[in-house]
Amino acid sequence: MQTSIPAGSYLVDPREIEFLLFEQLQIQKEFFGKKPFSPKLDQKLALELLSQAYRFAQKLGEAYQSADQEECRLRADGHVEIPSKFFSLWAEYISQWGVDPLRKKLGKADGERIEPLMPNVLSQVILEMFMGANPSFMTYGGFTIPAAKLIAANGTEEQKDIFLDNLISNKWDACFCATEKDAGSDITAVRTRAVGHQDQVYSIQGEKIYISAGMHSLTSNTIYFVLGQSRTARSDGYHLSCYLVPRFWWDSSAQQWINNNVECVKVEEKMGLKGCANTHLVFGRKGETKAFALGNKQNVGLLQLIPLMSEARVGTALFGVGIASSAYLHSVRFARQRVQGRLIREAFNTQNERVPIIAHGDVQRMLLDMKSRVEGCRLLVSMLCMEASRVQMMQAGPEVDRERLARSKRLVATLTPIVKAYVSDEAWRICETAIQVHGGIGYLKDLPIEQYARDVKILSIWEGTNYIQAQDLLRDKLGYGLNSLSMKYLNEDFKEFIQSKDCFPRFHTLFERVQLAWRMTEDVVLWIGKLVKEGQLTESTQFFTRCLFVIGTTCVAWKLLEAACTAQKGYENAESSEDMSFYEGKVKSAEYFIFNLLPSVECYHGVILDSKHSIFEIDSNQFNQTNRKFGA
Amino acid sequence: MQTSIPAGSYLVDPREIEFLLFEQLQIQKEFFGKKPFSPKLDQKLALELLSQAYRFAQKLGEAYQSADQEECRLRADGHVEIPSKFFSLWAEYISQWGVDPLRKKLGKADGERIEPLMPNVLSQVILEMFMGANPSFMTYGGFTIPAAKLIAANGTEEQKDIFLDNLISNKWDACFCATEKDAGSDITAVRTRAVGHQDQVYSIQGEKIYISAGMHSLTSNTIYFVLGQSRTARSDGYHLSCYLVPRFWWDSSAQQWINNNVECVKVEEKMGLKGCANTHLVFGRKGETKAFALGNKQNVGLLQLIPLMSEARVGTALFGVGIASSAYLHSVRFARQRVQGRLIREAFNTQNERVPIIAHGDVQRMLLDMKSRVEGCRLLVSMLCMEASRVQMMQAGPEVDRERLARSKRLVATLTPIVKAYVSDEAWRICETAIQVHGGIGYLKDLPIEQYARDVKILSIWEGTNYIQAQDLLRDKLGYGLNSLSMKYLNEDFKEFIQSKDCFPRFHTLFERVQLAWRMTEDVVLWIGKLVKEGQLTESTQFFTRCLFVIGTTCVAWKLLEAACTAQKGYENAESSEDMSFYEGKVKSAEYFIFNLLPSVECYHGVILDSKHSIFEIDSNQFNQTNRKFGA
Repeated sequence: MQTSIPAGSYLVDPREIEFLLFEQLQIQKEFFGKKPFSPKLDQKLALELLSQAYRFAQKLGEAYQSADQEECRLRADGHVEIPSKFFSLWAEYISQWGVDPLRKKLGKADGERIEPLMPNVLSQVILEMFMGANPSFMTYGGFTIPAAKLIAANGTEEQKDIFLDNLISNKWDACFCATEKDAGSDITAVRTRAVGHQDQVYSIQGEKIYISAGMHSLTSNTIYFVLGQSRTARSDGYHLSCYLVPRFWWDSSAQQWINNNVECVKVEEKMGLKGCANTHLVFGRKGETKAFALGNKQNVGLLQLIPLMSEARVGTALFGVGIASSAYLHSVRFARQRVQGRLIREAFNTQNERVPIIAHGDVQRMLLDMKSRVEGCRLLVSMLCMEASRVQMMQAGPEVDRERLARSKRLVATLTPIVKAYVSDEAWRICETAIQVHGGIGYLKDLPIEQYARDVKILSIWEGTNYIQAQDLLRDKLGYGLNSLSMKYLNEDFKEFIQSKDCFPRFHTLFERVQLAWRMTEDVVLWIGKLVKEGQLTESTQFFTRCLFVIGTTCVAWKLLEAACTAQKGYENAESSEDMSFYEGKVKSAEYFIFNLLPSVECYHGVILDSKHSIFEIDSNQFNQTNRKFGA
Repeated sequence: MQTSIPAGSYLVDPREIEFLLFEQLQIQKEFFGKKPFSPKLDQKLALELLSQAYRFAQKLGEAYQSADQEECRLRADGHVEIPSKFFSLWAEYISQWGVDPLRKKLGKADGERIEPLMPNVLSQVILEMFMGANPSFMTYGGFTIPAAKLIAANGTEEQKDIFLDNLISNKWDACFCATEKDAGSDITAVRTRAVGHQDQVYSIQGEKIYISAGMHSLTSNTIYFVLGQSRTARSDGYHLSCYLVPRFWWDSSAQQWINNNVECVKVEEKMGLKGCANTHLVFGRKGETKAFALGNKQNVGLLQLIPLMSEARVGTALFGVGIASSAYLHSVRFARQRVQGRLIREAFNTQNERVPIIAHGDVQRMLLDMKSRVEGCRLLVSMLCMEASRVQMMQAGPEVDRERLARSKRLVATLTPIVKAYVSDEAWRICETAIQVHGGIGYLKDLPIEQYARDVKILSIWEGTNYIQAQDLLRDKLGYGLNSLSMKYLNEDFKEFIQSKDCFPRFHTLFERVQLAWRMTEDVVLWIGKLVKEGQLTESTQFFTRCLFVIGTTCVAWKLLEAACTAQKGYENAESSEDMSFYEGKVKSAEYFIFNLLPSVECYHGVILDSKHSIFEIDSNQFNQTNRKFGA
């Protein structure tokens, strides 16, 4: 089963990204030339940047499979070994894609160093390539810039002095430490605590588990953002604090860096993402672990950390899209090369010619299934990133339209749990389909396909499980659908899109199906509200993940149809047959999704509105037992 | 995240198996005391057998994770190293579960050694436990008894003399070799061939890949059943032959065993099933590889091998049910122990007590989802195994009712692709859900959960991909639904079940839903026929996998409802609260499946009957390209 695809190749279709940014979203019109973005940023510079990013992604991809094979190891001396190729990649990454080199690329040497250089939606596609090409590598220092922003926003002047420059220059990195043995989804159960303090310096004791990229030697210092209890914490667990714990502490009397007693006691062995050192860290056991409280404020840690957690959720979606996209493109490439069997209508005669598997109906179905889902997931993330870009622009504008700003911020907040959960589940499905298209070779380590599936499986779990996302969406963002401002905004945007229906008579049926799905989506959200009002809050949670899926699916159908409309216009002006095929492919994505996958919305609508039957009450004892014996 | 579950534990609920066999299927009434089964086989002996099997499954389970860590390796001298614990397990396996020890257990020393000892449906649950506990181990010698049956049915007297005793006693094992580099789904592309022959002895040359358990030292000889071309093969590839290639050949002149030049040149590195040596074998390169043609007949190999391939497909389903079942039971056990968070209605107050996660609505949903699917998959396999048991019984009976026999054989043949494809896809979903229930720990190697997912992924690929199964079902077994005898038989059995509706007024709505799904399933099959008649054969293949899923799902709903009816009767006579909980749990499985999962049949029914829109035509060029550049 030879193939000309080099092992570990990260695949991208640049045309797809260009279509998204410059034809469908038209970011050049909405954002380029506007503050706070670099005034030199135009379409040409953006393309150059994307070109460079793609080249770096290909380098990252070359270390994708080897990182999986090497894994990470804890040595007896407490040192953590990470994949060997990560050191040179790191050096290149920070020299090319750190804040300062990026400012240089974008011709913006003045202004605040952490001010946005480009619209969030442009960063989206660059990060998608990096994360898709080597997600393990990208966990290292992945929190550094978000952490710097957190310190810029909340830190004391002293904290800014100590940390900002070192983080922004990537000399140091930052790492987020929330989970503990008994505090996973229930973060209020955190037991790590500040046991004493002196002059704004606290002593931390406790243990954190599953800390991604928690110990390594890529940087000279790591700043742990540790969620812990203060001594003044009220006994309800919502009063947590964010402590800044440097791995090495500056001893001003001795004028040297001293070990701050952060120990790594275990590196987890995992299904995938093996190049990322998932560490079990212990603070303050061998000696004092010193820390600052962010902004020297205690008991407001969860509030302070919301932006960091939200960014991590969007990052999870980018990781998912990036991997799923390459899995799909690998599948197309393989299906074009792999010759197997004859067309079913000609199979009776073995004299007939064998065909590449891309000619078989079921393979076409699988490929189009992946294509529409990948594009749909990317569009869902860009719904969020477009609003985030607007927030960046509005916040930098001379006059702030408070209402528009609040609207965009709310949409970002609402879409965050949707993109995290929806994309992570879809990415798993897409990688599964990629294995299936590849057949036996998809199960082998020769190609990166099976690793794609192993790597993306973490996405439905970390940064809040997908149920936690659904609860965040239904309870905290949509208020169980009762007079939800978020639904109102989404509805307004959807209605605006539907205005264009008459311009596309070819897509009339597609529009109708999406409109029907939208009405059902509204129904479903209102039904949750009805159940809650009737006192069935606990029972209604059984529908939360499906409700999130319904909203995500309908939004994807909407955006794919929007893409088809854009493609229709492009097609009319297409200059090459290659271009025409590309545009037709966009229309197929919308058609396939809307006629083959969108009907699941109707299915879940039926199930949820049939709550009289579909909600169940079950006693824990009614699940099976494992302590019985045969014939007992 | 401590847990009292020992690593690698294989979990079973014996009550579940007893309910299936003795309450729902009532195998004691239909089969016990009947020929050809052992006359001593009664319920007590069956339970004793199950008990012993469960104990052995637990031993197999102890080597489950270590086999994954050890993997298999090809040494420079051509020797293949397999997991070290497999040697003692093998010794125990053949001494306890080989044909002769099993005959002894069942008190049947006389008669043909390969005559059925117990009904197929009883073997089903025993094999489910063994395969679920350690599928890698079970690939070794997994073809031995089916191969012996093949030789008994087709071999020459000389071949029976040479092979039968050695295979039946497990001194030798057998191994099936079909796939080649360019012949995977398209078996007609096989190029391995007999290059000459003398006195019924052929010389074989060629290469086979992905040969499971293809080289090891558990037995003193391995007989490869090699699909190859004869020199007299017609140029259409359906004329293949089955050659029997011993790894060691008896040189009668030298009176010793000589190496028959079967080389292993590669052991594949895979996503899972790592304890199974998947080998790349080369025949006749270093010297002559001698072989017999099965029955000394050439060009009839595919026909001869049908029973072997069918057994492998059912075995695939058993492997899937076995793993999925343990994944589910692990999840229940974990959810009962893991304390996290408060009930959503009490979450506002952190003074409220934390609960085991089995109390959370979404965890209950996931567990019940797994429970109903696991039970459904097992029931689907038992539909087939019950018919197979009837075939065993009818073939041994004094007077053969040819029509009933043909009917049962046809149902076995029809259900084979359904169980293979349906169960392999469901097993993957169930393992995915098991990871989700476990959260972070589900992604780690501490528990076997992530390995379950990696191991079952092969099932949708090997022994004919799931599309190949769907094509076999729709084209070869159902004749595109045009006057299908198989559908008629299934329909008769379904109608017979529906007769019992009035006895269960509590389940009235459940019966109605299943009846509706049945009608839709018939519609869907007829629709495929309509498309084919209209000349849309190629296009209709896009629906084949979904059509198989629809049939599988509806059968599962039917059988789960049948189980609920049985449970209802059991509940009325239950003697303990534990028993009552168990029976209530069976009813929940049916209710959950029918109200929450069965609606997908309606969804696919809608999509397939909307073929005007949902079938698409796509040109290969409309899929994405990966050779473009940014800004080109």
